[in-house]
Amino acid sequence: MDQLRPTLAAGTAAEQAAYRQEVAAGLAGFLDSKRDALLKAAPDAAVLVDAIADLTEGGKRLRALLAYWGWRGAGGGEAAPEAVRAGVALELFQAAALIHDDIIDRSDTRRGKPSVHRQFESQHRRRGWTLEPERYGLAAALLAGDLCLSLSEEAFTSIGPEAGSGTEARRIFDQMRTEVMAGQYLDVLEEVAGPSRPAAAAVDRALQILRFKSAKYSTVHPLCLGGALAGGDPELVHAYAEFALPLGEAFQIRDDVLGVFGDPAATGKPAGDDLREGKRTVLVAHTLNSCSDPERRFLEERLGSSLMADSTVEELRDLIVRSGALAAAEQMIEELTAAAYERLDGLPVGAEVGGALRALADAAVRRNA
Amino acid sequence: MDQLRPTLAAGTAAEQAAYRQEVAAGLAGFLDSKRDALLKAAPDAAVLVDAIADLTEGGKRLRALLAYWGWRGAGGGEAAPEAVRAGVALELFQAAALIHDDIIDRSDTRRGKPSVHRQFESQHRRRGWTLEPERYGLAAALLAGDLCLSLSEEAFTSIGPEAGSGTEARRIFDQMRTEVMAGQYLDVLEEVAGPSRPAAAAVDRALQILRFKSAKYSTVHPLCLGGALAGGDPELVHAYAEFALPLGEAFQIRDDVLGVFGDPAATGKPAGDDLREGKRTVLVAHTLNSCSDPERRFLEERLGSSLMADSTVEELRDLIVRSGALAAAEQMIEELTAAAYERLDGLPVGAEVGGALRALADAAVRRNA
Repeated sequence: MDQLRPTLAAGTAAEQAAYRQEVAAGLAGFLDSKRDALLKAAPDAAVLVDAIADLTEGGKRLRALLAYWGWRGAGGGEAAPEAVRAGVALELFQAAALIHDDIIDRSDTRRGKPSVHRQFESQHRRRGWTLEPERYGLAAALLAGDLCLSLSEEAFTSIGPEAGSGTEARRIFDQMRTEVMAGQYLDVLEEVAGPSRPAAAAVDRALQILRFKSAKYSTVHPLCLGGALAGGDPELVHAYAEFALPLGEAFQIRDDVLGVFGDPAATGKPAGDDLREGKRTVLVAHTLNSCSDPERRFLEERLGSSLMADSTVEELRDLIVRSGALAAAEQMIEELTAAAYERLDGLPVGAEVGGALRALADAAVRRNA
Repeated sequence: MDQLRPTLAAGTAAEQAAYRQEVAAGLAGFLDSKRDALLKAAPDAAVLVDAIADLTEGGKRLRALLAYWGWRGAGGGEAAPEAVRAGVALELFQAAALIHDDIIDRSDTRRGKPSVHRQFESQHRRRGWTLEPERYGLAAALLAGDLCLSLSEEAFTSIGPEAGSGTEARRIFDQMRTEVMAGQYLDVLEEVAGPSRPAAAAVDRALQILRFKSAKYSTVHPLCLGGALAGGDPELVHAYAEFALPLGEAFQIRDDVLGVFGDPAATGKPAGDDLREGKRTVLVAHTLNSCSDPERRFLEERLGSSLMADSTVEELRDLIVRSGALAAAEQMIEELTAAAYERLDGLPVGAEVGGALRALADAAVRRNA
């Protein structure tokens, strides 16, 4: 997000940097206390916390920052502990989702490092332990993700009564969790059931998946959560959602484009990873709808083949471009972004918050990683 | 637990039955509302809730009942909504742990039915979907477990301020989650690293695993949670823990014995399942410490072989009996149970609660399933 600092007023940039630092310190302190507790009671299990700490050190902190500016825009105080704890909870939830997502997608890398299950697998091989390294890696990562999910909740509850039973902030946090898990399931389902479902509705299905799995979770829920925590009125929280939904959709379509066309050096993921994983994104759905029958068979037969050759990735990329799907996706990003910016201009927030949200929006849709 | 009703006074039995019914109704109502929400927003994802509802219909409800009598013993009211919600949260947490545990252990069955990942696998085969059924089954069950874990938290928070930030009940719930996940990790670790670690400490390691993974979670935490929720004083909650720890240890060693010697018709699990999974239980640790070198090699080479023949299960059972490990495990159960009963007699609770806890203790350690 560094490339965007110039668009931020100096005071806003300094405030945001201070919040980021508080979230990083909050994460580290919270995880240190958990590690210490385990080191006393069950030292061997402290590696689960190590894996979580390592993963949460990276990342763009998009969700935490949106929660912060949502909080500020609704009248919350600068660098308030509640906003920091909300950021910590969101970052831990994101880490838990990534750990389990990488198991599901069999991803080898995450944020430029080996994914958590691969790290545990390597530990098994290094130590020369018995039975299968892959199975151990999966089990350890599954448990690290479960622990991370529980810790996210613990951090969220620590916010206090503002996030307690019956509050709007709690309702948003709960809805976020259910929708992300439902969306991930729809994604997995589409990989296996997509080919037997009506092709004409493929783009609609892809849009529903991206809304649940990513758009609402990456932008709408964090921003609204921050607003609700600060006691923002329902109209403001609604206006946040209206701005954030097209932004989140554009964000995820950008992600899908990067998943096929991104530069591995920038994304930290192998080129064409989404194609090997068989992800039926908006990009793929558009292609299926616009190419010839033989091309469609060619694509269907190759999607989800984990051993796909680089040359095949290249052929599929050509097809996606040739079919007009890439252009269609870029146009969707364009239109959604324009809608988001229009709604951003109408948000009843001060210039500082508006500027910060604009910079985050730019980073979300114009990024290369 | 039906066989134990005769030992309960009629009034106690009726109260317990009423609570069980409230928990069952609470679970069903809560999951129905979640299913309805998903059916509106993302109908295909409602199967995740179906899987959870199906699994939570079974089970002995040991944890919910311990929470209830802990609550009652600390002065909580009969069939109070707080106690019902705590029971619902504990049952959902148990279901989440079982779903993920069955993935880790590659278990085919649970509570006499196919395990959740196997159910999703079968769905894939029935529908003739593309890509691998096993992979889909794992992904769907992993997400169902994640959702179940989140719903458990949602149910726990719904108790209200008594379970809010900074309360003793919340501290116990948080500790329970961390310890179960740490304990499951220690269990997985021992399967792969056990053979390269000092055999003399194998029983101690097995005891630590069972304390974290099961004993504290199955008895100590639910009972203390109920007591803390009702505002029980720290001495009472401490006395609960002193009674429940040996009980939980005896409970889990009984489980380990059933995992090797249990009747599949009663346990709902194949005979010798723990041996095929490579579980290094107290039973196995005792055997490793008491048999000859060639016998130890024989056992080490076969533990964790998922395709183990029934005749090999028979041979390993003979070895466990011959080595004196079964007798040693039964003696541990005896001693721990005696310690638990002695402490139960000293608990400052009324005759009704004492009688109910005694019946639950009997069920936990004298069961055959």
